[in-house]
Amino acid sequence: MASLMMTRLWAGREFVDRIARQSPARLALTVFAGVILVFTALLSLPAATASGERAPFIDALFTATSAVCVTGLTTVPTGVYWSSFGQAIILVGIKVGGLGVMTLASILGLAVTRRLGLTARLLTASETKTTRLGEVGSLIRVVIITSTSLELAIATLLLPRFLYLNETIGEAAWHSAFYAVSAFNNAGFVPTAHGLVPHGSDWMLLVPIMLGMFVGALGFPVILNVARRRSKFSRWSLHAKLTVVTSSILVLVAWTWYLIAEWTNPLTLGPLGWGQKLLSSAFLAFMPRSGGFSTMDPSGLHEASWLITDALMFVGGGSASTAGGIKVSTLAVLMLAIVAEARGDQDVDTFGRRIPRDSLRQAVAVTFVGATIVLVSCLILLEITGLTLDVVLFEVISAFGTVGLSTGITSEIPTSGQYVLVALMFVGRVGTMTLGAALALRSRRRVIRLPEERPIIG
Amino acid sequence: MASLMMTRLWAGREFVDRIARQSPARLALTVFAGVILVFTALLSLPAATASGERAPFIDALFTATSAVCVTGLTTVPTGVYWSSFGQAIILVGIKVGGLGVMTLASILGLAVTRRLGLTARLLTASETKTTRLGEVGSLIRVVIITSTSLELAIATLLLPRFLYLNETIGEAAWHSAFYAVSAFNNAGFVPTAHGLVPHGSDWMLLVPIMLGMFVGALGFPVILNVARRRSKFSRWSLHAKLTVVTSSILVLVAWTWYLIAEWTNPLTLGPLGWGQKLLSSAFLAFMPRSGGFSTMDPSGLHEASWLITDALMFVGGGSASTAGGIKVSTLAVLMLAIVAEARGDQDVDTFGRRIPRDSLRQAVAVTFVGATIVLVSCLILLEITGLTLDVVLFEVISAFGTVGLSTGITSEIPTSGQYVLVALMFVGRVGTMTLGAALALRSRRRVIRLPEERPIIG
Ligand SMILES: [K+]
Ligand SMILES: [K+]
Repeated sequence: MASLMMTRLWAGREFVDRIARQSPARLALTVFAGVILVFTALLSLPAATASGERAPFIDALFTATSAVCVTGLTTVPTGVYWSSFGQAIILVGIKVGGLGVMTLASILGLAVTRRLGLTARLLTASETKTTRLGEVGSLIRVVIITSTSLELAIATLLLPRFLYLNETIGEAAWHSAFYAVSAFNNAGFVPTAHGLVPHGSDWMLLVPIMLGMFVGALGFPVILNVARRRSKFSRWSLHAKLTVVTSSILVLVAWTWYLIAEWTNPLTLGPLGWGQKLLSSAFLAFMPRSGGFSTMDPSGLHEASWLITDALMFVGGGSASTAGGIKVSTLAVLMLAIVAEARGDQDVDTFGRRIPRDSLRQAVAVTFVGATIVLVSCLILLEITGLTLDVVLFEVISAFGTVGLSTGITSEIPTSGQYVLVALMFVGRVGTMTLGAALALRSRRRVIRLPEERPIIG
Repeated sequence: MASLMMTRLWAGREFVDRIARQSPARLALTVFAGVILVFTALLSLPAATASGERAPFIDALFTATSAVCVTGLTTVPTGVYWSSFGQAIILVGIKVGGLGVMTLASILGLAVTRRLGLTARLLTASETKTTRLGEVGSLIRVVIITSTSLELAIATLLLPRFLYLNETIGEAAWHSAFYAVSAFNNAGFVPTAHGLVPHGSDWMLLVPIMLGMFVGALGFPVILNVARRRSKFSRWSLHAKLTVVTSSILVLVAWTWYLIAEWTNPLTLGPLGWGQKLLSSAFLAFMPRSGGFSTMDPSGLHEASWLITDALMFVGGGSASTAGGIKVSTLAVLMLAIVAEARGDQDVDTFGRRIPRDSLRQAVAVTFVGATIVLVSCLILLEITGLTLDVVLFEVISAFGTVGLSTGITSEIPTSGQYVLVALMFVGRVGTMTLGAALALRSRRRVIRLPEERPIIG
């Protein structure tokens, strides 16, 4: 009996090991989908809802996907619909999902095979994009320790503020922890009915949350690189430089836009004082990188502000981070290539480094596959819902970029449309690169090079 | 006195020659803007309007730009507002504009300097994208003769039909000529109040017009290449193959979409019979490539059909054609690169040829600069008009792609918004490549190559 179990366990180990060796991406996808199903089952328990009744399948699936994919879109109000137990499940889902698809698969591989073999190496190397395989073993630990420490730090900054707001110690601790995890993982979930709306002018709450979201959205490769090289910008990796600089530019552009365009909008910044206008627009500027919190209803923004938010949400945050989108480094490579093309330069150079030509092709693939996914999803949702392009595009990009902002249609659209959003959040979090690798039917190398012929462009 | 004039003429020749040598693109832009201003002045003549009153400046400028940039967007109804003289000016504007920016500049260069020197060679070589400079001299003639013959052929096909519809010989000849020129040049202008709407089920009118638009949108390099190599597909240039195949696929995709999505729409295909549904959706499928005619009001289409039309209009037709957009070969190169990336191929191969790596960078530049122009124009027009994204995006892409389809807002938006559309039509017709070359402040070549470092993509 014991021997049979041992045999089966061995067979399981062998199976996981084989899949991992054949296609790490396919294993990662399976694991990630499995994690979502586990959390769907947990949220389907009657104890998970405030009413004590079993949640409908679509609401459990949608919330589980939204939590594990750190998106924050919801078909039911988190702070009202779910019980404390249900909210705790969501928080754990965010924490687990925020670690990243590949890291999760490595942890599973490690648990099953009990050795850090090729499996985990392949997986984590791809997630943290490290080239030194020797480091991989400690990297899983580093990722978990780093994220948890940073979450603890944010929670510690938030705790006294919640206490000052006359919450009990238990409440304050719970809210601090929830917001800290939700912020660092760019999840956008809130534990109370009105979320951050009542705290729209509260610098001491919003600034730590903004910082947490920004750091989380840089990605583990950047956080670890910067932590190692400290303040020496010149010694950072090219990837860290590109990510931090591009991220900062995007936040500044967004801040300027919201401040100017929404200055007199009676539904957003209009009624606020100067200081509050600055704070609210800054907070808004951090959101599209995939934070997804809101101190005011995004449905009140101008149409033009929706559009620029669409563009920012599509770009998203850093690679291998808690943010979604095509990633800021992808945008940076495209922009640098365009500048080089306009100048007639042979190479694409930046920060004293030459960017390999393959990188451009990867960037093109990620961007165009992303744009195609958004386009097709919009076509489907427009037909399903009969709504107008502005709100549908906003919702689709918010789901694809795992942002979680919404003009308010998430709970109103038909169930079939909500399944489309579930698929979008999954694809957006997994990433088009991993998805492509998992779906690829063959990987061949051509030896014979064909004669070159130039088509006309533009 | 005569000697002074001679001296001035010489100075003028030298000036044109110098600019042409320094920056052919900048000369071409200047010439093209000059042509538009000349037609604006002509349309500002009181005799140009049906009422005999001088047209407002914005209407004259808008119509002249729309004609010379072969777009077809109008702030006033062409067949009603303008006199026969005015309509003849518009027709000449279309014919001149359809030749292409670079060809126009070569003709001017030829007229001023009276010799086909480096000027014309540089210009026309860039327009028709030929690499054999020896051919350039005859190419201007070939372009004019080819386009005129094809227009005559279309007109000859249309003439008996108009006569059959009880028009006088004069009317029928005028309408045939107008539609033939408007179709081959993908201009979308119509000489009567209701345009092609009353002829929505008239195969004998619509099929020659569709064919004319398709051939015109392939571009002179393809037309000349196919004419020379006849039916031997395998002997066509790579560019001709890519253009014809991609164009055909896009038309088929559009046809299928419109047929299925609009089948029951009471505002479009719904009330029609089977045959008419097939014809109307086919005609609609040819439009976004930049034709711009309509047998039914585009404002009746579903939101999703608007969005797919947006995508098709953004792509447009062939390079150096009478169509706008980023061009089908640009799309083809991006798609092929993505397929190669997914397969893990080192080279981007198609039709037994390898596409150079520079082509991808050009394609990226053209596409992203185009997308940025559309995005920024949308932001501006959304703020100016207060309209929703769906109609504004449609109008902006229609202007940028020199398509001319509209949901009906062109004449209603404020004058400042119409100036934005004028700028868009100009940029769309001139092309982002030429514009970029004209604006480029320096063209340098780096000799020292920097060390390579790979950022993370996606
Ligand atoms: K989020
Ligand atoms: K047109």
